[in-house]
Amino acid sequence: MTEPTASPAPPLSATPRTTLGRKKDRAGTDRACLHEVLDAGLICHLGLVLDGHPQVLPTGYGRDGDVLYLHGSSGARSMLAAGEEPEVCVTVTLLDAVVYSRTLNDHSMNYRSAVIYGRPRPVVDPAEKEHALRVLSDHLAPGSWDHARVPNAKELAAVTVLALPLDEASVKARTGPPTDDPAELSSPAWAGLLPLHSRWGTPVPAPDLAADIPVPPHIADRRI
Amino acid sequence: MTEPTASPAPPLSATPRTTLGRKKDRAGTDRACLHEVLDAGLICHLGLVLDGHPQVLPTGYGRDGDVLYLHGSSGARSMLAAGEEPEVCVTVTLLDAVVYSRTLNDHSMNYRSAVIYGRPRPVVDPAEKEHALRVLSDHLAPGSWDHARVPNAKELAAVTVLALPLDEASVKARTGPPTDDPAELSSPAWAGLLPLHSRWGTPVPAPDLAADIPVPPHIADRRI
Repeated sequence: MTEPTASPAPPLSATPRTTLGRKKDRAGTDRACLHEVLDAGLICHLGLVLDGHPQVLPTGYGRDGDVLYLHGSSGARSMLAAGEEPEVCVTVTLLDAVVYSRTLNDHSMNYRSAVIYGRPRPVVDPAEKEHALRVLSDHLAPGSWDHARVPNAKELAAVTVLALPLDEASVKARTGPPTDDPAELSSPAWAGLLPLHSRWGTPVPAPDLAADIPVPPHIADRRI
Repeated sequence: MTEPTASPAPPLSATPRTTLGRKKDRAGTDRACLHEVLDAGLICHLGLVLDGHPQVLPTGYGRDGDVLYLHGSSGARSMLAAGEEPEVCVTVTLLDAVVYSRTLNDHSMNYRSAVIYGRPRPVVDPAEKEHALRVLSDHLAPGSWDHARVPNAKELAAVTVLALPLDEASVKARTGPPTDDPAELSSPAWAGLLPLHSRWGTPVPAPDLAADIPVPPHIADRRI
């Protein structure tokens, strides 16, 4: 076994569960990869252990530097209410293509995923909570904070926001063409990628919207 | 509190964790809704408790009637190797639109999600495993089973497949326009939906594909 070559970037985190055991070539090792995946996703899947059982729910999030803000799910809220800080696993996955190979065994997907482990703290300070909601809003609906009515004190108090540091995280990706065994290359089967794209459709005004309110540029021109 | 009206369909499942505590109007109650969400998704997020900690990983799946077949993740494999049948939570989420309201507090997403709880069994019988792999293949890459080389005995033996019955499941969805408080309707802010669409791009042949192999119809004509 040869020594690993020196990496130009420090490892993202080096706990056993964030160090890939197999398909190591799919591991991203720098913080920029982590940020890129998190910034490109729209929702995460938040996992926690509730009364001993796994629970995974889709959740909104937003990133500010190396902190991930999360909307508190009902499970997290019930744990916080019981005085427990929930341990979570937050996963964001982007699908890029289906990989068609000459063999079913080598069919795959091109994807990018980020997995973050930690114990998020509840954001309680009103100023920090307002900041966190702005970060969440800028992620879900950039431009809305300056266009719509911002949360009032009552709304701020009613919402649960969690802050999860990006300390223990891993990034994994598959990119590139199918990798068939040389023995399969004479197959008559087609091999290649079928890319998967997301795009925004045409804005649909609310039925009760006044006819003279145009679609603002931050919505009409939103790009993925 | 009024009595609930009779539902034409039997409940999907009636355990406390699959019965919504809040926003009950977002709960789907029939099996057709569950099947529709599962059939429209491409990957699931598989959650389990590994050494006491939550773990959530993206995983391929396929549905056959009321059984969900899953590719075994490394976490599930390590638990099976230790003689444990992992308890899992499998979540599939489809994002349909960003909901822009007059207030930040009522911003939301239109989505459909399915959450399934259970203890999947490992599929060990070779004939059932081959069937399960066909179901997984038909979900990820419909048409490939009849086009590419099917798994041989060695490949079949090397793969881990889990079977999860759709016994304990819930479906949740938000649809329709923003719901602003009547007091907000005089706002000058735009309100409505920005739909999110997925579509397949142009197939990209593998660099080592012979130039005379055309893109077959099951790939060229694939629709979402």
